[in-house]
Amino acid sequence: MNKLNNVQTIHLGDELLMGLRLNTHLEYLGEKFAGFGIDIKRSFVIRDQLEEINRSLEIAWEEADLIIVTGGLGPTEDDKTRDAVADFLNLKLIYVEEIEQMIRERFRLGGYVFSDNNLRQCYALEGAEVLENPHGTAPGQWIEKEGKLVILLPGPPRELNPMFEEKVIPLLIEKGWMEGHIPHIQLRTVGIGESKLETSIQPLLKANPEVQVAYCAHASSVDVRFVVNDPVHEETLKKVSFEAEKIFGEDFVGYGNDELAEWLLKALIDEGSTLSVAESCTGGLIAAELTEIPGASKAFMGGMITYSDESKIRGLGVPEKLIEDHGVVSDQVARAMAKGVGENFSTTYGLSITGYAGPDGGTEKDPVGTVYIGFHSPKETMVKKVNLRGDRKAVRERAVVQALDLVRRNIRKYDNKDKTGSD
Amino acid sequence: MNKLNNVQTIHLGDELLMGLRLNTHLEYLGEKFAGFGIDIKRSFVIRDQLEEINRSLEIAWEEADLIIVTGGLGPTEDDKTRDAVADFLNLKLIYVEEIEQMIRERFRLGGYVFSDNNLRQCYALEGAEVLENPHGTAPGQWIEKEGKLVILLPGPPRELNPMFEEKVIPLLIEKGWMEGHIPHIQLRTVGIGESKLETSIQPLLKANPEVQVAYCAHASSVDVRFVVNDPVHEETLKKVSFEAEKIFGEDFVGYGNDELAEWLLKALIDEGSTLSVAESCTGGLIAAELTEIPGASKAFMGGMITYSDESKIRGLGVPEKLIEDHGVVSDQVARAMAKGVGENFSTTYGLSITGYAGPDGGTEKDPVGTVYIGFHSPKETMVKKVNLRGDRKAVRERAVVQALDLVRRNIRKYDNKDKTGSD
Repeated sequence: MNKLNNVQTIHLGDELLMGLRLNTHLEYLGEKFAGFGIDIKRSFVIRDQLEEINRSLEIAWEEADLIIVTGGLGPTEDDKTRDAVADFLNLKLIYVEEIEQMIRERFRLGGYVFSDNNLRQCYALEGAEVLENPHGTAPGQWIEKEGKLVILLPGPPRELNPMFEEKVIPLLIEKGWMEGHIPHIQLRTVGIGESKLETSIQPLLKANPEVQVAYCAHASSVDVRFVVNDPVHEETLKKVSFEAEKIFGEDFVGYGNDELAEWLLKALIDEGSTLSVAESCTGGLIAAELTEIPGASKAFMGGMITYSDESKIRGLGVPEKLIEDHGVVSDQVARAMAKGVGENFSTTYGLSITGYAGPDGGTEKDPVGTVYIGFHSPKETMVKKVNLRGDRKAVRERAVVQALDLVRRNIRKYDNKDKTGSD
Repeated sequence: MNKLNNVQTIHLGDELLMGLRLNTHLEYLGEKFAGFGIDIKRSFVIRDQLEEINRSLEIAWEEADLIIVTGGLGPTEDDKTRDAVADFLNLKLIYVEEIEQMIRERFRLGGYVFSDNNLRQCYALEGAEVLENPHGTAPGQWIEKEGKLVILLPGPPRELNPMFEEKVIPLLIEKGWMEGHIPHIQLRTVGIGESKLETSIQPLLKANPEVQVAYCAHASSVDVRFVVNDPVHEETLKKVSFEAEKIFGEDFVGYGNDELAEWLLKALIDEGSTLSVAESCTGGLIAAELTEIPGASKAFMGGMITYSDESKIRGLGVPEKLIEDHGVVSDQVARAMAKGVGENFSTTYGLSITGYAGPDGGTEKDPVGTVYIGFHSPKETMVKKVNLRGDRKAVRERAVVQALDLVRRNIRKYDNKDKTGSD
C-alpha cells in the first residue's frame, strides 16, 4: 500500500500570482501522482518570500506526509527556498563540493561563466539527498525528517519534469513511499458529452464497485479514466474498460492520452493511405495539429490554406460559379475543396473545411459557428455540416476536432466493411 | 489608495489536483488584479470537501482582506462551497426567490428542465449580494463581514470571467475596495533575452525608482511591465516606457498584449499590402496564428503546407534540381518557396519556412533545430537561418515567432526608409 496519504505542493511564484504565467506544475505533478493512485490533497501558490514559505510549510506540515516545494532554488538573493526550509526544519545548510563540480561542469560544456552567485546553489540541507539537475544549475533536494518527506524541485518545467520522472519517482518507489504500480486505464472519446457518457456506463460501474471513474472534458473530446486501488482488481479493471469501449462504440477513439490526430495518422499509415487538407476558417490549425506529431509526413502530404475566394478558385479548382451560386461557406464549396485538394496533392483522402468562425460573418441560415466539413475518398465525396458554440478560438478548435473525427469515422467504417466483407 | 492589501484565492478542484485540468483561474484573476496594482498574496487549490474549504478559509481569514472562492456552487451534493462558507462565517443560508426565477428563466430559454437539485442553488448567505450569472445557473455571492470581503464565484471560466469583469470589478471600485485606475504600461519585445533586457534598462530604472518592473518570458518574446503605485507618477511611467522603447529599438514590437501576429497584420493592412506563407516544418502554425485574429483575411491571403518534396515542386514551382543539389532544408529552397508562394497567391510578400523540427532528421551541418526562413518582397528575396533550441514543439513555436518577426523587421525597415527618404 502507499505510504503517501497526504501529498501537498507549494509553488513559489510571484509571476503566477501576478497572472504572468500559468501554473503547469500542479497539473504535471497531479497527473503523475494520479498514475500511482495518489491524489494531491492541497496546493499553494505563494510569494517568493521567506515568511510565506515558512507559513505554508507550517500549514502543510500539520497534515502532509510529503511536501513538494517548487521554485526558489536559483542563484540570486531572491531565491529563498533553501534558507526557508533550513529555517523551518531547523537544519543547517552545508556546502557540498559535488554540487559545485556539477554546476562548473555544466557551465564548462555550455560556455557559461561560474559566478559567485552560483555558490549559493552549492548548499544543501544537512542530511539531504542531492538530486542532480542535468538541465539546469539548481539541484533538487530530498529531505526526510520525523517520518515526513520534503522535496525541493527547481522551477523551470524543463528542469523539474525530467528530475521528477528520472529521480523522484524511482526514489519514492525504492524507499517504499509508494507502490510502483497502480492499475488504471484511460479511454478517449469524441462525439459524446460527459453526462451522456456517465449515464451510459452507470450500470457497468454499479456492477463493479471496485472500479472508480474520473472524467475530463476537453474542447470536443472527453477522457474516461478507470482506476482500482488494489492490483487484485486488475482483471476487473480490464473487463470494465473493454465493456466501456463496446458501449462507447464509434465514439471511442483510443486508449491512453493519444490525441485524435495521433490516432488518425497511425490508422492512415496502417492503411497505407495519405491525406491532404484544404482549410478556410481553421486557417492551418488542422495541418498544424497533424504535423505536431513526429513522422506525420508518412501519411500527411500537406495542404492549402485558402483564405481568399481567389485561392479557392485558382489553387483548388473550385468553380467560380459554385461560389457565386451557393456562397463560399456552403456544402457545394466544401465538397469541391475536398476533391480539389485530394487531386492536387494526389492523396487517398482530401479533407476540407469552410465556415464562419466569427465574430463577424454568417448569414441567417448559417450563423457564426456554422462549419461545412468536406471529405473526399476514392469511394465517395461527402459533407458534414456542424454548428459549433463559442468564440472564434473555440469554434476553430472544435472544427478541427470535428474534421479529424470525420476522417476517423470514415476510415473506421471502411476498415470494418473490409473486415466483414459486406458493403 | 487600495484597501486591498491581502487578496487570497481558494480554488476548489479535485480535477486540478488530479492533473486533469490546468488552473486557469489564478492566471486570470492575477492578471486582472495586477491591472489595478494589486498582487494576489496566496492561492490554494483544494479538494471539494467541507473540512478542506473550512480549513483554507481559516488560514486565509487570518491575513486576507479579500478571499475569493471559485467552484463548488453547482446543483449537486458534491458542491459544498455555500454550506462551508455559511458554516465558517456563521451565517444562515436563505432561500432567495429571485435566484430561482433567474435560473428558471435561463432554463426556459435554453430548453432545459429545472430539477429539485437546482433548488440548492437558490440559497444565498444571509446578507449576501447575489451576482447574477448570465452564462450559467450558479449565481456568485458577495459577502462582507468584520471588515473583510468574501466573494464566491462559479467554477467554469466562461461563467467566472464575465462575472468578474462585469460585476465584481465595478463593485470593488464602487464600494471603495480598490482604486479604479492604476497606471501600468506593458511593452512586448522579440529577439532579446530577459537578462540582456534587464541590463539594458537598469540605468533607466535606477534613475526612476518610483517605477517598478516585471518581466515575463514567452516562447520567443519577453514582456516588460512597468507599474507605479501612485497615479502621481504617471508622467514618469510614460517617460520610462518611451525611453525603454528607444533602448529596445528594433526589438520592440508594441505596447500591450498584442501578439506579434496582431501587430504584423495591422502593419500590413496599414501599408495596404498582403502576405502568403509556404510552410514545411511548421506545418500550418504560422497561418493558424495569423488567422486566429478576426479580420486576418484583409491582409493574409492564404498559404501552402508543403510537407512533401512533390508538393514543393508542383505547388510552389521549386525546381526539382534545386532540392536534389542543396537538399530540401536549404537556403536555396527557402528562397524558391517564398518567391513561389508570393507569386502563386499574388501577394506583396511571400514568407517561407523549411527546417528540421526533430526529433529525427537533420545533418551534421544543419542539425535538428536548424530552420531557414525565406522572405520575398517586391524589392528583394532574402533568407535567414536560425538554430532553435528545444523539442519539436518548442522548435516549431520558436520558428513561428522568428518567421513573423522577420516580416515585421522588414516591413519596419521599408517603413523607416520611406519615412527618412534614404535607402
